[in-house]
Amino acid sequence: MSADVSPRTLEGPVLVVGCGLVGTSVALALTRAGVRVHLRDAQPEHARTAQMLGAGTIDDPERVALVVVAVPPDFVAEVVADALAEWPSAVVTDVASVKLPPLEALASAGTDGLERYVGSHPMAGSERSGPTAASETLFEGRAWAITPHAAAAEVTLERVRDVARAVGATLVEMPPDEHDLAVARVSHLPQVMSVLTASRLHGGPAEHLALAGQGLRDVTRIAASDPTLWRQILHANRLPLVELLRGVRDDLDELLDGIERGQVIEDVLGRGVSGTRLIPGKHGEERTPALTTVFVQVPDQPGELGRLFRDTGESGVNIEDLRIDHDLGRPVGVAEIAVRAERAEELAAALTDRGWTAYL
Amino acid sequence: MSADVSPRTLEGPVLVVGCGLVGTSVALALTRAGVRVHLRDAQPEHARTAQMLGAGTIDDPERVALVVVAVPPDFVAEVVADALAEWPSAVVTDVASVKLPPLEALASAGTDGLERYVGSHPMAGSERSGPTAASETLFEGRAWAITPHAAAAEVTLERVRDVARAVGATLVEMPPDEHDLAVARVSHLPQVMSVLTASRLHGGPAEHLALAGQGLRDVTRIAASDPTLWRQILHANRLPLVELLRGVRDDLDELLDGIERGQVIEDVLGRGVSGTRLIPGKHGEERTPALTTVFVQVPDQPGELGRLFRDTGESGVNIEDLRIDHDLGRPVGVAEIAVRAERAEELAAALTDRGWTAYL
Repeated sequence: MSADVSPRTLEGPVLVVGCGLVGTSVALALTRAGVRVHLRDAQPEHARTAQMLGAGTIDDPERVALVVVAVPPDFVAEVVADALAEWPSAVVTDVASVKLPPLEALASAGTDGLERYVGSHPMAGSERSGPTAASETLFEGRAWAITPHAAAAEVTLERVRDVARAVGATLVEMPPDEHDLAVARVSHLPQVMSVLTASRLHGGPAEHLALAGQGLRDVTRIAASDPTLWRQILHANRLPLVELLRGVRDDLDELLDGIERGQVIEDVLGRGVSGTRLIPGKHGEERTPALTTVFVQVPDQPGELGRLFRDTGESGVNIEDLRIDHDLGRPVGVAEIAVRAERAEELAAALTDRGWTAYL
Repeated sequence: MSADVSPRTLEGPVLVVGCGLVGTSVALALTRAGVRVHLRDAQPEHARTAQMLGAGTIDDPERVALVVVAVPPDFVAEVVADALAEWPSAVVTDVASVKLPPLEALASAGTDGLERYVGSHPMAGSERSGPTAASETLFEGRAWAITPHAAAAEVTLERVRDVARAVGATLVEMPPDEHDLAVARVSHLPQVMSVLTASRLHGGPAEHLALAGQGLRDVTRIAASDPTLWRQILHANRLPLVELLRGVRDDLDELLDGIERGQVIEDVLGRGVSGTRLIPGKHGEERTPALTTVFVQVPDQPGELGRLFRDTGESGVNIEDLRIDHDLGRPVGVAEIAVRAERAEELAAALTDRGWTAYL
């Protein structure tokens, strides 16, 4: 694992194949960085939309220095092989969520030019999809996983690093198998659990959902993502994912048994608590215990939130994180403003002075 | 189910038994509403802390009009029975997360005075606990479930409604068994799923968590809650919860089988997507499709977020919801500002004019 914040330079022209959310965002960011970008998509209207958004040109390139393959997981190996064949002097990378299966497929097919391919995976996305959901800043400061393999040339690796740097991402390097184990745990498993939770909302009377709170909303947010894309991701990463899901099933059985018998289940619940503490805080720091939340009551009327923002800005206390909590039938929202612990009293006092109900 | 926003009047004195987060918050809110509140806790230092916070007095009451039992689920029936016996003219309610088991325990013990008891459940809480986490505004605009039963007198029910009104909550009435089915689905199940997800973060190399994003954080937030409290809640509501968890296990087996065989699992994933659409939006409205998110790039430097808040407030566009997304190694955060769709362009333009990178 390494991080790098070198200047943004990348030799073009670049061909982006696949103009969905991620491909178009890469194209926009590279164009902004001064790189000439060509666009292709199996659905030509997507490429045209991306061009309209300023992501590059749909003209056929005469020469290509680098190809970014941004197609759904099921098509990655095929499109990478085609790109290696079509552009025999170009470096090729892809941005799919799973890294070992396409590499193995390419190797076992005896693909020529594998020294010119290194896979990668930007840790950024959205529940939304398509070129119109793209953004040139999608990767700013995000982790961008790069997954070197034995057959790759050093120059290939360096060129793929340049892509991540050019779009403002933070490099994280690990072998393809390690990457797939990691995303199974931190991305694909939570996705499945969110889906299973949201799925159980069917079957009860609609009135029951009047009791839904923020916890349910948080747990189920990502369940709204595209099922077709996720079917491909989950299938492609099935080996590590199935092992984790079997572990979940064991835990679930233990819980079910414990709940039914009234036995001690605190150990399962306690493993959950300690698990949350393993997640790094912002900027890759350890979870910082030095933040305190200031709660502020915000009437749900035009201008109130704006007034809070203005007053908070003028307090001079830097905000580390912020959340607005809205709930059923609530005429008043609560803003949760996280600040460094030693500044919390100061912010609460400043807001109280300005007429807010603010408390720690 | 009914909602009510009548004036806040409640006849005291009120005795609050149990000075944790919820009990102390009730006491604070009732004190603010002008009601005389007495405080008790099996751990006297909790009652003293609550008194210090302005929640009421630890002096023994001579007379009590209403008792609010705010003790852990395992002790609710016993403490309610004691309260009914000690204050033979008082109405008694409790605020525990599960409603049928304590009522059944009271009834099967032949408890005298059940006509003076109606259970209730404010849908508000926190991962934090204890009197110092309490707030007089915890229930403002939140749903407060009230669960009438056949033996309850109408005057009892009316008095318990007065408590919910006095603390600014929104009344939701349903029978105890319906309530327990509802919270099994919208609260206890998500809690278990969050715990199971966070629990699986153990066992992998720490480096893998460098790839953690917002999805993981959202799904696992509530897993940090108090395991002892949750053991009692899950056990008390085990009948509906176990049925739901068995359904989850069936879905999980279906997914595991589908993922392993490479079969179609879009139907499971699709049930997740449609499940998220069942959750009501803020203020109990249907999920509104008329909101658009404006994304704004925010450099992580002191004052930048404050400047954004000021500029947003001055734009005159009302903010419906707001989220700051911070992630691994990210020197730049992205604020997601949800506004009514027809005002989104206006906000983005106003922010762009003021030098921000803002986009839809």
